[in-house]
Amino acid sequence: MTITRRVLLGTTLATGAMAVAPHAAAARGTQVERWGVHEIVLDGPAGGNPFDDVRLTGLFQSGERQIEVPGFYDGAGVYRIRFSPPDLGQWRWRTTSNVAALDGRTGAFDSVAPGPGNRGPVRISRDGYHFAHADGTPYRPVGTTSYSWALQSDARCAETLATLKAAPFNKIRMLVFPNVASVATDPFVRTGGGPKDWDPTRPDPDYFRRFEDRIIRLGELGIEADVILFHPYDATRGYSGMIRADDERYLRYVVARFGAYRNVWWSMANEYDIVESKTVADWDHLFQVLVAADPHDRLRSIHQLHVYYDHRKPWITHASVQHGAAPLDDGRVHPHRLFAQKAVIFDEVIYEGNSSKRWARLSGEELVERFWWGTLGGCYVGHGEVFSSEDNPDISWLGQGGALHGTSPPRLAFLRQVLEDAPIPGIDPLQQFWDYHLGGRDFTWYLKYFGREQPTEWQMRLPTRAADPHHQFRVDVLDTWNMTVTPVEGVFNMVQLDEYDVHDPARPTVALPGKPYIALRIVKV
Amino acid sequence: MTITRRVLLGTTLATGAMAVAPHAAAARGTQVERWGVHEIVLDGPAGGNPFDDVRLTGLFQSGERQIEVPGFYDGAGVYRIRFSPPDLGQWRWRTTSNVAALDGRTGAFDSVAPGPGNRGPVRISRDGYHFAHADGTPYRPVGTTSYSWALQSDARCAETLATLKAAPFNKIRMLVFPNVASVATDPFVRTGGGPKDWDPTRPDPDYFRRFEDRIIRLGELGIEADVILFHPYDATRGYSGMIRADDERYLRYVVARFGAYRNVWWSMANEYDIVESKTVADWDHLFQVLVAADPHDRLRSIHQLHVYYDHRKPWITHASVQHGAAPLDDGRVHPHRLFAQKAVIFDEVIYEGNSSKRWARLSGEELVERFWWGTLGGCYVGHGEVFSSEDNPDISWLGQGGALHGTSPPRLAFLRQVLEDAPIPGIDPLQQFWDYHLGGRDFTWYLKYFGREQPTEWQMRLPTRAADPHHQFRVDVLDTWNMTVTPVEGVFNMVQLDEYDVHDPARPTVALPGKPYIALRIVKV
Repeated sequence: MTITRRVLLGTTLATGAMAVAPHAAAARGTQVERWGVHEIVLDGPAGGNPFDDVRLTGLFQSGERQIEVPGFYDGAGVYRIRFSPPDLGQWRWRTTSNVAALDGRTGAFDSVAPGPGNRGPVRISRDGYHFAHADGTPYRPVGTTSYSWALQSDARCAETLATLKAAPFNKIRMLVFPNVASVATDPFVRTGGGPKDWDPTRPDPDYFRRFEDRIIRLGELGIEADVILFHPYDATRGYSGMIRADDERYLRYVVARFGAYRNVWWSMANEYDIVESKTVADWDHLFQVLVAADPHDRLRSIHQLHVYYDHRKPWITHASVQHGAAPLDDGRVHPHRLFAQKAVIFDEVIYEGNSSKRWARLSGEELVERFWWGTLGGCYVGHGEVFSSEDNPDISWLGQGGALHGTSPPRLAFLRQVLEDAPIPGIDPLQQFWDYHLGGRDFTWYLKYFGREQPTEWQMRLPTRAADPHHQFRVDVLDTWNMTVTPVEGVFNMVQLDEYDVHDPARPTVALPGKPYIALRIVKV
Repeated sequence: MTITRRVLLGTTLATGAMAVAPHAAAARGTQVERWGVHEIVLDGPAGGNPFDDVRLTGLFQSGERQIEVPGFYDGAGVYRIRFSPPDLGQWRWRTTSNVAALDGRTGAFDSVAPGPGNRGPVRISRDGYHFAHADGTPYRPVGTTSYSWALQSDARCAETLATLKAAPFNKIRMLVFPNVASVATDPFVRTGGGPKDWDPTRPDPDYFRRFEDRIIRLGELGIEADVILFHPYDATRGYSGMIRADDERYLRYVVARFGAYRNVWWSMANEYDIVESKTVADWDHLFQVLVAADPHDRLRSIHQLHVYYDHRKPWITHASVQHGAAPLDDGRVHPHRLFAQKAVIFDEVIYEGNSSKRWARLSGEELVERFWWGTLGGCYVGHGEVFSSEDNPDISWLGQGGALHGTSPPRLAFLRQVLEDAPIPGIDPLQQFWDYHLGGRDFTWYLKYFGREQPTEWQMRLPTRAADPHHQFRVDVLDTWNMTVTPVEGVFNMVQLDEYDVHDPARPTVALPGKPYIALRIVKV
């Protein structure tokens, strides 16, 4: 039996496991960052089917708090339990197993202050509509999608990671099961040469070890891994067409392996409503399994094609929505918040690209516009691109990662900076009944956006009743495409105009450049 | 003990009750229209508190079918049980009560073919997004709101009914408890002169008898009564601030009295989210009480101000939504269907009127435009108006009924005719991801709408793949404000234009009059 300590996603990434005796570890004051990963490594049986035959959990205790964490089999007789301490202080642990060699092992470690860049996992903000790290730092999602990037060669993955390091994205949607040509194609042990010759009762640890390596590397870049557990695109292999017992085993395996990494989110499925083998009741059941299997309580959602899932269900932490046209108007966006009563991410709004398909031929302008309307509506939007070349017609960022070719990413970096500078917890839609097309926080901070319109001035009226606080404001003109911020000279002294609005009678309008994609940031002085 | 037969909402309205002995009634072959009302009248105790002390139900049986119907106390020792037979054939009944005089009474009647105008209650269409009468006739809601019209003088009510007879509305939203100055102000027995001096344990039968008379008269006009059970506007009397037991007694009373009338719908509350005394859990509970109390299973919804109720909850038959700006674009409308997965009525979209308040100063054009965008989005929209005069500053259609002063009703009659001529079960949003701004039924019937735009031609492309059916179409130009239908000469022979669309290469455009509020109706030849 060995104990391995890894402090992940915050200090150095230990690739070699340090083996120490458990009592020695406790005695030496093993330290793990808060929200890092403490990994217990145990030797056990390699025979039979360890995935079904062996039950293993670790009970972690600190003060009054007890957390039971499932272990998993990592091949070659090695079993692991991964735990991410949510609080500072000493944690003691004890294993329970139906196998004597794995049962009743104990140990302890100290959860210590997180290192630089470790802000804890992303949670839902207290108001329910935004995101923040566990340490309170706001998290403003600007995500992308690259479905099978993690399943490509190490060289291509390295290229993707280098691209991401220079890109504005802080979340990436990625499939566990491949949807395009990939290097890693076998999540389950092969039993023959045919496409269906695989054993759903035996996950292949190599496959998942490769995948979690990608998760860890994303974490080092400060990028959330939005892990998509099922999808409808693998009719040949049929990984999303397993029977319920196999789905459950797979889910528990993935969650036990990946769930301790603080940058993991769960997306139950991509386009769940066209997975032919599963009903809504099946998805609901799998969410129950997921919640029960995940003591780290990572964010959970599910992505649709046509049929919106009921995002009010209690196991959904935020709505993940596909809609190609909704984020073309904040008035189409905010009803999604009204219905979900939760944070909403438009994870798929069709893609930038040069495809002949209408779902992948947006211009950069058209994609960036969707981000801005989504922002004004109090929601978040996701990126994707499909640029295929004659040399590589089947290769794209959306499928395999690699390089980005579109014009939107720098503009999304510009948007992300605007979001980072916005109030906490985030931008809410304002006065939705009345078509002001304003987002922000009442009375102190506003974002106005004009989309494709090209006005040369704007009547600056802000919704404020006589009984509301009245302030002075300064205004920045944001050219969201050319990425410039131009302050308007002076301040606006707002006084009541009518029952509903304030304005500055001395300067009732703001001059605008007569170009498309202009926004205004209006900030209380 | 007396038995009264009333055949309501279909043949004549019997205002005097015909008393016959039960066996004689059966022997003589008492007849009630299917979906009419069979009323049993019984003499029982008048002392104590009959609302709490007496339990009374009738069990109606026809073949294998059994329906238990609650009775109610109508004052002066009179008890009634009202039942609307859902099927043809003989129905036998037997009462159960804790009072001997009301217990074990029996009788029978024949449910016979409905008379002219009796199409049965409105139900949800099989696809879930539209409405139809029980006999299969489509029902296309074009509703209005007059909150306290039923509580006004008989003279004003007569005026309101005369107005409705000439108006396009086939549904009216109406409060049980008054929200404005009314003649009927006391749903519960008064105990003193102060505003809170009333006894919630004793509904006043006179009040409810007046109200149901209005329901019946609406039924004679073919108008659905959307009965709103609670509202937040009566802080002085506090009718919506009762304790749970009183709410339950009130609900059961209303449902037993009104529920047999086939034109009744239930709206649990107006602006439920600002009823301070109740939480969402309270509303959910009251829906349980309502479902249990209503063997006639009338339509059920609830209306909000800010916080959308979860319309996916199983007791909700259709979503009732208030939103002032959503029906300004079908792209804002159809997400409501995506979320609710049910029929959606925008029952309140702010009002036509001359008020200084922004919620009641729409022009007729602005209100009618909302109806059209709502229609294109596959939903339904409701009317209201507030025109106050110097003579009567506090009187309006919205509050008390009376006359209509706005310019929208004739245009809503025009819209209603378009809806009546539309396919069954109704108009669905088409290709929502792709902003075609088309409603209808794929490949056979389309409605296009241009709102305030004033185009002089339209590129007629219809979303049709090569594998879809291809047809010839004729086109009508609808001027939705001037209420004209102008057929376009000849037909359009559609052939595939690209992967997604068909067009007629010989006449790729439709000429338009360059005016606002134009629609096109495109119908397969």
